[in-house]
Parts: sequence; C-alpha cells; structure tokens
Amino acid sequence: MRIEARLNELGLALPAEPEPPPGFQFAFEWARVLGNRVYLSGHAAQHADGTFAGPYGRVPSEVSIDDAIEAAHATALSMLGTLSRELGDLDRISAWLTVAGAVNADPGFPQTTVIVNGFSDVITQLFGPRVGGHARTALGYSALPMNNAVLISAEVEIDG
Amino acid sequence: MRIEARLNELGLALPAEPEPPPGFQFAFEWARVLGNRVYLSGHAAQHADGTFAGPYGRVPSEVSIDDAIEAAHATALSMLGTLSRELGDLDRISAWLTVAGAVNADPGFPQTTVIVNGFSDVITQLFGPRVGGHARTALGYSALPMNNAVLISAEVEIDG
Amino acid sequence: MRIEARLNELGLALPAEPEPPPGFQFAFEWARVLGNRVYLSGHAAQHADGTFAGPYGRVPSEVSIDDAIEAAHATALSMLGTLSRELGDLDRISAWLTVAGAVNADPGFPQTTVIVNGFSDVITQLFGPRVGGHARTALGYSALPMNNAVLISAEVEIDG
Repeated sequence: MRIEARLNELGLALPAEPEPPPGFQFAFEWARVLGNRVYLSGHAAQHADGTFAGPYGRVPSEVSIDDAIEAAHATALSMLGTLSRELGDLDRISAWLTVAGAVNADPGFPQTTVIVNGFSDVITQLFGPRVGGHARTALGYSALPMNNAVLISAEVEIDG
Repeated sequence: MRIEARLNELGLALPAEPEPPPGFQFAFEWARVLGNRVYLSGHAAQHADGTFAGPYGRVPSEVSIDDAIEAAHATALSMLGTLSRELGDLDRISAWLTVAGAVNADPGFPQTTVIVNGFSDVITQLFGPRVGGHARTALGYSALPMNNAVLISAEVEIDG
Repeated sequence: MRIEARLNELGLALPAEPEPPPGFQFAFEWARVLGNRVYLSGHAAQHADGTFAGPYGRVPSEVSIDDAIEAAHATALSMLGTLSRELGDLDRISAWLTVAGAVNADPGFPQTTVIVNGFSDVITQLFGPRVGGHARTALGYSALPMNNAVLISAEVEIDG
C-alpha cells in the first residue's frame, strides 16, 4: 500500500464510484481488466461522493487555464479511485503505458499540453518516473460528455 | 457460431466490406490482428452492399440525436462485419477491451455519451456483459471522415 | 539496419529529439516501451535539429491540404526518429498495430483521411504491407498542441 500511503502524505483523497447525473446512463465499464492490462474509460473530475465536479465549458473562454489544470489533477484522482476499486491495491500497477487527454478547447487553443500536464504530474509524482512515466496525447475537442472541460482515458500494466 | 445465431435471431445483418467513395483511398487496414489482439480502425454506418450510409453532418444541428444513435448502432454491425471477415467466427472474440466513439458534434454538445451508447448496447446485448463489456470514450470532434456523424474504433481480445 | 538503408535510399533523414518551444514542458515520454509493445505519444513535424516545424493552423482554411499531407509525411519521420533512439534499430519493429491521426480541421472538413494517408504511405512504403500495415483513425480536432496542423500517435509491436 505504498501508493495509498503517498496519497495520504500528500493529503489526496480518492472519490467514490462515478455517479451518473440524472438522465445519463453509462453503457460501459470504468475499467476493463484483462491479463496484465487495464483499459480505463474517459474519466472526469469528481467530488468525494462520486458526483461529477466539473468545471464545465470551453478552455480558455469559459473555463480558465488554471481551473482546467486543476480539473486534470482531479481527474487523476478519479481514475485512481477506479483503479483502487478494481485492483484492491494501487501497488499492483507495474507501469502506466499511455494516456489520452481530451480538452474542451476553443478552436485553435494551443496549450492543451499544459492542461493535461495537471494529470501527468500527479501520476509521475505518485508512481515515480519508472512506473508512472507514460506516452500521451493532449488534444482539443469540440464537445465532451456533460460539457466537461477535461476528460482523460488511459491504459496501464499490472502484475499478472 | 453462437454470436451469428444471435444476430439472426435479432434480425441483424452484417454489411459487406467497406466500399470507398469516389476519390477516397484507404491507406490502412480495417482490422489488424496480432497474437490475441485485434485493433479496429474507425468504422462508420454502411449499407448492406458495403457503401457508406451516413448520416452526414453535425449532431444535433444537422443530424438528430436519434439518427446519430441509430448510426452508432449500425456502426457496430459494420465493425462486426470486419471482424467476421477477419476471424471467420465471431465466437473467437473472448473480450471487448476498449471502444473510442467519435461524434461529429456541435461545439459544447453534452450528450456524446448517449450517442455512443447505441454502439455499446448492441455489443453488450450480443456478447453479454462478461465478454461484451468494455472501457470507452465518447467525444465530440470538429470533423470526421466523409463528414460522417459517427465513427467508432475499438480493440478486442481473441483466443490465441 | 534494413529500414535505415531504405530511408537512405529514399533520401529521408530522421530529425533529432523533439525540442520543446519556450514555455512548454513535456510531462510525458515520447515513447513508452514495455515487453513487446511501444506506445508512441502524439508526434508532429520537426526540423532536422528537433525543433517543431509546423505548419500551424486549421486545414484547409489556414493550412492547405497539400501542406497538411506533407506535415503528416514529416510526422512519420519524427516518430521514426523517436523509435530509432528508443530501439537502436528500426528493424526491431515487427508490426505496426494502430495509428491515430489528428488533424486541426475546419468544422465539417470531410478529408481527414486524405491528410493522414501522408503518414500511412511512408510507413507502408518503408516496412511493406505485412509489417507496416495498421489499423487507423483520422479525425478532426478543434485544437492541437502548439496549434499544429497535424499530430499523430501510434502503437507498434517489437520483437520481445
């Protein structure tokens, strides 16, 4: 429980299972575990009770760059919450492989990289560069689920 | 041929190989099979003869939500057509892993999730939750190939 | 060094390691190698010295289709540069698996396929269809890092 201990040290808590807003149905799984791979669905920032936290809208015209970076940071905790429920122990993660960061971006916004660093920095800080390092894309979309500002999916390796 | 039987029961037919429209060249493979993995290219709705069926345009200003859900449903059949041609028998699929749903969305459209459920529901209905369950993203794009309303790619596991 | 020889024959040189522009920090790895898989981050066209080459802007209103195809071609060389530094020898690549092409596209631009063919054609030409064939998506985004016109990520298989 090395990673859980580090989360505690940093004062970071993982939210409860994602709670769909009224009228939404999730016809997918938050994580799909097969062999030594975990495929993670698009996650967004959540409150402690599992409800979605936003912010909602486009970056930077409706949501500031700083708030979007913070959302990316919170999204890492959402994803770690899913992984913790699926795996029992986050120490079972042997390598982060690839991360896809989606930003609800104004046309031509050139700094999606900066936003998604808010996610990558948490992962690398918690797992260290050898386990936490990952390939990545950080792209701007015209529309995200529930109009979230940031949504992130990933693939990780676990010990068989 | 359990899955094929279920398709027949449900009255669902799989379209022929995708037929490129005039002036289009596909410099990729519809499915790439390696070891126990199949990587599936972005598929779209097709007519029985393999030609692309649309609808074309943005959701919801040019294509209604219901028509886009129907396109996602048809896209599942397009992808199953590819898998059937590649694998011979759809029962060789041991697990759906991850699905990436792309919607040609008006800026800020918050319901990409609802659209891509049209795909996920077919897969889960046909394969059951243990094999058919999958991680997923459902995102809104400014432009899709041929201006399709919906395009979906995926990764599945097969028996070695 | 069969692939390197073919690059030389074709007069194609691989650029140096990507050089972040002022104010940019890359909190990810350009390639993540694990077991027989390499996950490649979103790459863009580079100059020989590693600096990013553009073009920057939307296709086709700000960047022509021909220039975007050329950028996709150059992006293949950027990615091969990363693979060459990581693997030592490009002949270690046993199969291209899947490629995700992102185009900074005007809303409704229907030809993202044509743009990303500029990448796929180089890979298939160099590696041949058996190794170089790949599944693919080619999608239009509202925003790409640094406002690049084209950005491409991939997953490849290597000999254990």
